[in-house]
Amino acid sequence: MDKYIITGFSGFVSRHFLHYLESRSEQVSVLGLDLHEPAFDVRDFRHLTCTFERVDLLDKERMQNAIYQFQPNYILHLAAYSSVSFSWKNPILSFQNNTNIFLNLIEAIRLLRLSTRILSVGSSEEYGNVTERDMPLREDMPLKPVSPYAVARVSQEMLSQVYAKGFDVDVVITRSFNHVGPGQKDIFVVSSLAKQLAEGSKKHVRKLEVVTGDLSIIRDFTDVRDVVRAYYLLLKKGKKGEIYNVCSGRGVTLSEVLNVMGDYVGLEVEHRVDASLVRPQDNKMIIGSNKKIQHEVGWVPDIMLEKALKDVIDDWKRRLESHVAGGSAT
Amino acid sequence: MDKYIITGFSGFVSRHFLHYLESRSEQVSVLGLDLHEPAFDVRDFRHLTCTFERVDLLDKERMQNAIYQFQPNYILHLAAYSSVSFSWKNPILSFQNNTNIFLNLIEAIRLLRLSTRILSVGSSEEYGNVTERDMPLREDMPLKPVSPYAVARVSQEMLSQVYAKGFDVDVVITRSFNHVGPGQKDIFVVSSLAKQLAEGSKKHVRKLEVVTGDLSIIRDFTDVRDVVRAYYLLLKKGKKGEIYNVCSGRGVTLSEVLNVMGDYVGLEVEHRVDASLVRPQDNKMIIGSNKKIQHEVGWVPDIMLEKALKDVIDDWKRRLESHVAGGSAT
Repeated sequence: MDKYIITGFSGFVSRHFLHYLESRSEQVSVLGLDLHEPAFDVRDFRHLTCTFERVDLLDKERMQNAIYQFQPNYILHLAAYSSVSFSWKNPILSFQNNTNIFLNLIEAIRLLRLSTRILSVGSSEEYGNVTERDMPLREDMPLKPVSPYAVARVSQEMLSQVYAKGFDVDVVITRSFNHVGPGQKDIFVVSSLAKQLAEGSKKHVRKLEVVTGDLSIIRDFTDVRDVVRAYYLLLKKGKKGEIYNVCSGRGVTLSEVLNVMGDYVGLEVEHRVDASLVRPQDNKMIIGSNKKIQHEVGWVPDIMLEKALKDVIDDWKRRLESHVAGGSAT
Repeated sequence: MDKYIITGFSGFVSRHFLHYLESRSEQVSVLGLDLHEPAFDVRDFRHLTCTFERVDLLDKERMQNAIYQFQPNYILHLAAYSSVSFSWKNPILSFQNNTNIFLNLIEAIRLLRLSTRILSVGSSEEYGNVTERDMPLREDMPLKPVSPYAVARVSQEMLSQVYAKGFDVDVVITRSFNHVGPGQKDIFVVSSLAKQLAEGSKKHVRKLEVVTGDLSIIRDFTDVRDVVRAYYLLLKKGKKGEIYNVCSGRGVTLSEVLNVMGDYVGLEVEHRVDASLVRPQDNKMIIGSNKKIQHEVGWVPDIMLEKALKDVIDDWKRRLESHVAGGSAT
């Protein structure tokens, strides 16, 4: 029976990964590690045997012990402080909770001499300062990180490669681009817009003003359900020490995203730019190439962005309902 | 009066930097920070007002407090775990005592809103996996670090650049190539060879067998007294956020180094390769370009390698004498 450790277990991506595993009807065992209790019940799965341990990955000894007890075949390393803006406010905490926790994790695997495969999740932020001529971004392009968060992710990636080549640790690396999907926190742009639209759709108005950042920027969005399938395939078929973009390969403006969602809820949308939501020195355009993961792993995204956006809106409607009804957010 | 903080105060490079400052006859004040007491007397200088504090740079609060009290104009950040082989044995300690201590230091300057200029000392190891065609190595070349130590240094450098651009912190960055000079520990190759020759020269023999690693590799050596002058000039004239190679621009084989030193002591030298001293996957050739530092800062090395090597031998003779005489190593 395959055994997975998932770090960052209580987060958005982890829950979708669990649902993906469950949908495959394989008997697998999962140990979830996180600082925070998950908001779901680990007993709610039919095929998964799922347990949770509250562990701070900065605590090397506790983590090493949890790994040793469980002897995982796979580690999906989702734990991260993945906010760019937080990293500008507290670079030390950001660096520790990205790079240092990862180093603790991969060093534990080395010291325990396990053949565990690790998926090291990185970010499109690693590309950093790019121009439109660089699109689509390929894995072999130079990295020019511009935020403390991006530096932390590049450091994690370089450590992964040194461990793969120098210590023969089995690690596969991603650079994951923006994801969208049900359950995402509203600190992310699409989720924030969808929440505003879901709220507006309950007000029985025709016109709605939403608060936005710069809507002209172009991003590459992938549905989180496609993303977790990519992670599964990379754990199964990725090449040791290799880096893979996880992205749709298609760029859309945020205003296009807003229009699609506005049409879906049947509202005429006007937007007001909040300067505090406009990131200084943000890249105009970020689009990735997914040729490598297509070619080597056989992954292509299945879910159209339109479908993803509708599901995000529907999810927000449900979350707002259950909130009004006093139910807990799921 | 200029005020300098020197981290890694008790080390080899720091002592030469102090002598350089002293030789300039400027009245400057120096606060030395290190985990270990210096082996010299801080009161031995005529022009420098020198004090020492034992501080672990991983202790953010203590370090920040020391910086705040002293209000330095310049920080020469020499503290590091600079051994590649140690980094393979303990990657976590290596990373913490290179990258994390540096992040603590530069974050302290940001939080205290000081206009202090920091010199972030990096390493030619950052270039990593290079070929002869890449020589001489220029600052704009891609970095391919292959050891945990090299990754830690690249991370430090990327953090420096983010702090310079994103936070306007005044930091100048080096990639320093091999240095040689009096006082260096015998874990470094030239110092180790010189020590063996100095020992041999006292034995009144004609032939001497020395134990070596791979003598065919080519390195770029600079006398430490030239290196510290480069650091001084970079603190005074380097451009914020810029990276400078500190190197001679000239490559020599280690066997050439050994021959020069053998001639100087008048011994016929044979060498025996100790496999444990041959680094796996070591680069055949590392030569840097010093055009940028020449052009922008006006630094060129003054001391010929032959002179440097003789001084290293003479220094070892003195150290061995004083050791025999029961004196403490200075």
